[in-house]
Amino acid sequence: MDVKEQVLEIGKQARAACRELAKLSTRKKNLILEAMAEALDAQRAFIQSENARDLAAGREAGLAPAMLDRLALTDARIDAMIKGLRDVAVLNDPVGEQISTWNRPNGLEIRKVRVPIGVIGIVFESRPNVTCDAAALCFKTSNAVILRGGKEAIHSNLAIAKAMQEGGEAKGMPAHAIQLIPTTDREAVRVMCQMTRYLDLIIPRGGEGLIQAVTEMAHVPVIKHYKGVCHTYVDAAADLSMAWRICENAKCQRPGVCNAMETLLVHEAVAESFLPRMGEIFAARGVELRGDEETRRWIPDAKPATEADWYEEFLDLVLAVRVVADVEAAVEHINTYGSGHSDAIVTADEKAAKTFLAEVDSATVYVNASTRFTDGAEFGMGAEIGISTDKLHARGPMGLEELTTYKFTISGKGQVRE
Amino acid sequence: MDVKEQVLEIGKQARAACRELAKLSTRKKNLILEAMAEALDAQRAFIQSENARDLAAGREAGLAPAMLDRLALTDARIDAMIKGLRDVAVLNDPVGEQISTWNRPNGLEIRKVRVPIGVIGIVFESRPNVTCDAAALCFKTSNAVILRGGKEAIHSNLAIAKAMQEGGEAKGMPAHAIQLIPTTDREAVRVMCQMTRYLDLIIPRGGEGLIQAVTEMAHVPVIKHYKGVCHTYVDAAADLSMAWRICENAKCQRPGVCNAMETLLVHEAVAESFLPRMGEIFAARGVELRGDEETRRWIPDAKPATEADWYEEFLDLVLAVRVVADVEAAVEHINTYGSGHSDAIVTADEKAAKTFLAEVDSATVYVNASTRFTDGAEFGMGAEIGISTDKLHARGPMGLEELTTYKFTISGKGQVRE
Repeated sequence: MDVKEQVLEIGKQARAACRELAKLSTRKKNLILEAMAEALDAQRAFIQSENARDLAAGREAGLAPAMLDRLALTDARIDAMIKGLRDVAVLNDPVGEQISTWNRPNGLEIRKVRVPIGVIGIVFESRPNVTCDAAALCFKTSNAVILRGGKEAIHSNLAIAKAMQEGGEAKGMPAHAIQLIPTTDREAVRVMCQMTRYLDLIIPRGGEGLIQAVTEMAHVPVIKHYKGVCHTYVDAAADLSMAWRICENAKCQRPGVCNAMETLLVHEAVAESFLPRMGEIFAARGVELRGDEETRRWIPDAKPATEADWYEEFLDLVLAVRVVADVEAAVEHINTYGSGHSDAIVTADEKAAKTFLAEVDSATVYVNASTRFTDGAEFGMGAEIGISTDKLHARGPMGLEELTTYKFTISGKGQVRE
Repeated sequence: MDVKEQVLEIGKQARAACRELAKLSTRKKNLILEAMAEALDAQRAFIQSENARDLAAGREAGLAPAMLDRLALTDARIDAMIKGLRDVAVLNDPVGEQISTWNRPNGLEIRKVRVPIGVIGIVFESRPNVTCDAAALCFKTSNAVILRGGKEAIHSNLAIAKAMQEGGEAKGMPAHAIQLIPTTDREAVRVMCQMTRYLDLIIPRGGEGLIQAVTEMAHVPVIKHYKGVCHTYVDAAADLSMAWRICENAKCQRPGVCNAMETLLVHEAVAESFLPRMGEIFAARGVELRGDEETRRWIPDAKPATEADWYEEFLDLVLAVRVVADVEAAVEHINTYGSGHSDAIVTADEKAAKTFLAEVDSATVYVNASTRFTDGAEFGMGAEIGISTDKLHARGPMGLEELTTYKFTISGKGQVRE
């Protein structure tokens, strides 16, 4: 079989698995998730020996230490995957939930019911734990999943998938509910992106290059977890102590993640009182600043910002800083350069807050809080499959509910249309 | 300007209009819709003279009489557009609705709020009234809309759009909230499909060729209003009188629409008692039947069905008929050959009904009613922009709510992440 045939066959089997998945009760699904957790524990030695093969190949290929670290399946990481499966088991199952119901004057009873999406494809890069986390969320929502990981982690991913399949199937999980593409040929991703008959949704998780490639090839609907060019805007009416604390947190608490601040916008009326102290705080934390002319009046050590800096997701201790005329100018900047992820205003002025909340076109918009809170767990959603920067069909943190769609069921007594 | 520049400029202007649209109150939007209705009435003579140009060109090009009929803007059709605008004005405005709200232990207040999608592209074929209907629904939901109609109706579409723009803008509608692509160059559709920066969603409305072309070119998310290969399954436990009535209605009441029945499935246990009379009813209505071997035992006049017939959307007085072993076989047939639109079971057996509702993977699934009810108005949703056969982001009849997405707004008191 060539790659195309192989992937189409996997798609066909996933589609067939959907029918069987639809028949599982929540209780049964939870027992299966528990069995998967036990199997991961039981096959720990095998998983780690397969992981060692990936690590050796990675060292040989000269992977950066940070990459090798992300690839390593330590005992703690396997424990985290096991705990993750058990956490998903206790979460509420959205499938079958009645979203709304109403009767029509002719007696028809209409119900809008939550159902699985069907077959979900996840294309991801190095971290092998995504195999486990994504499969668990898709399984809990009765979706069949087709996983496609990076080539650096292929043996680790296959070992994790095998443990989950064996553990799950022993307790009645349908065959092909969870599949991992065994080839690392890039052609497989193209076939996935275009097999509209077998795949209902594709979620790319990884760097910009991966996401763009998938988007451009896809005929299947895509939900992107794209970059987070997040802003904090310090308004004229901001409590400056609060603003210093929020900005420090948003930039420094974990700079390498998508909800960290990448650009700071400051109202011109408080530039003089806010920026010098902010500059000292960032200097103490080792943050490199890139400012516009007005910023550099108050923080002379800042480097000059270029146009490209406003678009940049630094994912590092680097921050672009710009002084703006008012809240409207801040909104304009964010809607022009941002990525629709998370943006915050610090202000005591309710009118400015209202304008900002209404007009910033992003998934999550904050008043007087750090953008670092954009996260399924912080939102109280339990697990998350990621944070959508798309508007359709899910936006912001995506939990179990966002892995479902709905259908209408209509019960009648023989009604026909006049 | 070449076509690409022209369409991108329209996109840019639509994106700018979104910000202004977000500021309009419901009351103001309704006044603008009323002003559009008045402008259509006031410009009726101009619209009809422009329509006469399209009709003359159509006759010259040899358009079929049915096509010419769909193109004609009679007084009654203009009245219907005017009434449509007023109907949309009185519908509830979903924008700004709080979908849910909760507080976190750290005091953050999270709100999930309904917001416009942004810029919506509608690519449609001959009927010029779509210009008015689609623009009204998008405007009511504070979305900017870019319309692209067929070349046969270009003058009619431009005249309708002009009236709506002039009437609306006189009452404060933002410039570029409603735009119609003035060129009939097909390249314009390709540019629309790929301008991810300016377009948030594209909805193709028309024949299979149009929908496939858009799907294949699109990088922008697409919601398809695809074909309706709708089934009625007559179960072993069906009330046969009800089944005859429902099947006659589903096939004959309006055969040219997407929710009409295209394939009839019959449980083998009732083939003998159900099919001969059903054959007589259809013969009396002039329906051509195409049956499998078992069907032709009981309706000898039926033509033999081919494999292609099971996939066919006849949109005419033609029906495929198949005898199946049980409800599972019916579900299997529907999930294999159907288009995920509307499917019905006729049965008095609750278990069979439950299986059918749970396992048929379609937008609307019926028990003991005609599939002809799949329609926004019949569902009580007011207006509809169409019936989605996709699973994301909207499924089945799409009303105003389905033209919105959501965002999270989070209010704090200076919270930072630990």
